[in-house]
Amino acid sequence: MRKPKKLLNDPNNVRQEVMQGLIYAYQGKLTAISDYCAVYGNHIASDQVVIVSGGGSGHEPTFAGFIGNGGIDGCALGEVFTSPSPDQIIEVTKTIEKGKGVLFLYGNYSGDGMNFDISAEILAENNIITKTIRATDDIASAPLSKISDRRGVAGIMFLYKIAGAAAQFEKYDLESLYQVVSKANNNVRTIGVALDGCALPQSSKFNFELKDNEIEIGIGIHGEAGLHRQEITSSDEVVKDMINRLCDDLPFKNGDRVCVLINNLGALSNTELLIITRKVGIELDTRGIISHDVVVGHFCTSLEMSGFSITLIKLDEELQHLYDLPCKTLGWRK
Amino acid sequence: MRKPKKLLNDPNNVRQEVMQGLIYAYQGKLTAISDYCAVYGNHIASDQVVIVSGGGSGHEPTFAGFIGNGGIDGCALGEVFTSPSPDQIIEVTKTIEKGKGVLFLYGNYSGDGMNFDISAEILAENNIITKTIRATDDIASAPLSKISDRRGVAGIMFLYKIAGAAAQFEKYDLESLYQVVSKANNNVRTIGVALDGCALPQSSKFNFELKDNEIEIGIGIHGEAGLHRQEITSSDEVVKDMINRLCDDLPFKNGDRVCVLINNLGALSNTELLIITRKVGIELDTRGIISHDVVVGHFCTSLEMSGFSITLIKLDEELQHLYDLPCKTLGWRK
Repeated sequence: MRKPKKLLNDPNNVRQEVMQGLIYAYQGKLTAISDYCAVYGNHIASDQVVIVSGGGSGHEPTFAGFIGNGGIDGCALGEVFTSPSPDQIIEVTKTIEKGKGVLFLYGNYSGDGMNFDISAEILAENNIITKTIRATDDIASAPLSKISDRRGVAGIMFLYKIAGAAAQFEKYDLESLYQVVSKANNNVRTIGVALDGCALPQSSKFNFELKDNEIEIGIGIHGEAGLHRQEITSSDEVVKDMINRLCDDLPFKNGDRVCVLINNLGALSNTELLIITRKVGIELDTRGIISHDVVVGHFCTSLEMSGFSITLIKLDEELQHLYDLPCKTLGWRK
Repeated sequence: MRKPKKLLNDPNNVRQEVMQGLIYAYQGKLTAISDYCAVYGNHIASDQVVIVSGGGSGHEPTFAGFIGNGGIDGCALGEVFTSPSPDQIIEVTKTIEKGKGVLFLYGNYSGDGMNFDISAEILAENNIITKTIRATDDIASAPLSKISDRRGVAGIMFLYKIAGAAAQFEKYDLESLYQVVSKANNNVRTIGVALDGCALPQSSKFNFELKDNEIEIGIGIHGEAGLHRQEITSSDEVVKDMINRLCDDLPFKNGDRVCVLINNLGALSNTELLIITRKVGIELDTRGIISHDVVVGHFCTSLEMSGFSITLIKLDEELQHLYDLPCKTLGWRK
């Protein structure tokens, strides 16, 4: 059986070293609150609602790599695949908030939800007002009838993009920001596929194993079980099936205008990712769905998992305007 | 023994499908010359020297993914890890040249060199003037005394960036463009490390195998043998050794201003890449070398190889000015 192979220092110090890597890579545009393993951007204006996110490490550049001009403002870094704690969230929020309110925007996982909710309560006692949106874009993680149970995956990037533009450039107040990001969250759908698993830094085993000829449809970004496993067929067949599932779910229909994210979960070659990209274009075109923008690369990863995800977000005039504004973060520049 | 696992359609049609993926991802900013598997940008001005590159597929977003505003202009796509043919190079060059001359800028591999040289001869007969620069940044591929034998790897990105800015924005003539890109090529150095190999689309075997506890220092982007294999030590030790080798080679010295590229060769986690990034910052800082910009991600890949490379380029005033100009390509936005 294949074993994980990693180049690390202390497997128990990953998030701290990742944070230091981010600080160097951002070249003065990011500040660390070192003792709390939290970071924030140096772009924050005095008259904006601030956007705070957080989540487990291991998904880089998600989440902290989307801090910046036109992105989010602060982030609490959890250990690998682990929620950040309330003290991290509270500290970064207190440090950056400007009295205009705070949007908590993070993926829908129970640990994150619990710790952000506790943070919100404690911050409220300090007269810091928060509202919360949990990204729920993973269509494989629960049926549409239970959409609020769905997990957040790569689609959060589009929510960050829209939220950052609304808060920073258009100076939305907290309630308007909450409304527009809720709309975006309702309009975004993702599905992922894995060819091979990933391993925690401390582990000598992969978190799941697939046979040589097997892939898993609907994989979660921590290796959560998907919809089913199947034999590898052609790339085109797999992509067509994924687009069918995405389009049926919202639904996305003829004449809809969407942004498309084709996200590498880690170890898949970019060569395969571009072949996937080609077929996404063909399938959307066949359905008369208009691709407003196409984003391809490594955005929300799962350590060294081999796989990819496809995200669609349906635009209306307001979302399109916000999406089209610039964005300068480590993970995404527009 | 571990077997390669890929999601493909026809393994013999990879470059054509990659090209179609690029066309969709570029959303109208890229044109294909389909029969020749060559592409060019729609940004090209009538009064510029054009920059044509080319090389094997399998390194995406290199090479064609750096076409665009502030990047290169045209590219001939070879089969995976295979040079493009003269007819491809000639066709794209004839299609886009504006009578101001053409810079051929590509990695130093014998097949590419031969086919670009033949193309230059045939184009000269048609009164199209070309000059050629072969990127030679891989310090592990030949000693400094034989620098012109060195292979080109991720460092070509910095040459593209500088060449694109000089030709498109500053309207350098062919001779001045050749001079500044030659200077940049003389100032750029890369070294790579592999944890695991990659496999050609048609192959059921990896192109090289490393033991579970082994890494290879100085790996080439097609799996060419590096300097040596060694047991995995800590990430910090490996990075320190690589920075020592890079700094000794040019040399890079106290007070030098550099741009830094920390490139994922494919399957390494971005988590590990940021830990590497952290140590690069520490090492350069210790030496008094100033990081003018830091670029982190997947730029010049080797299919699904697990590994990374570090590139430094020393700036002078002219190179820094050109580097700082904007760049809007699929692979790199600035």
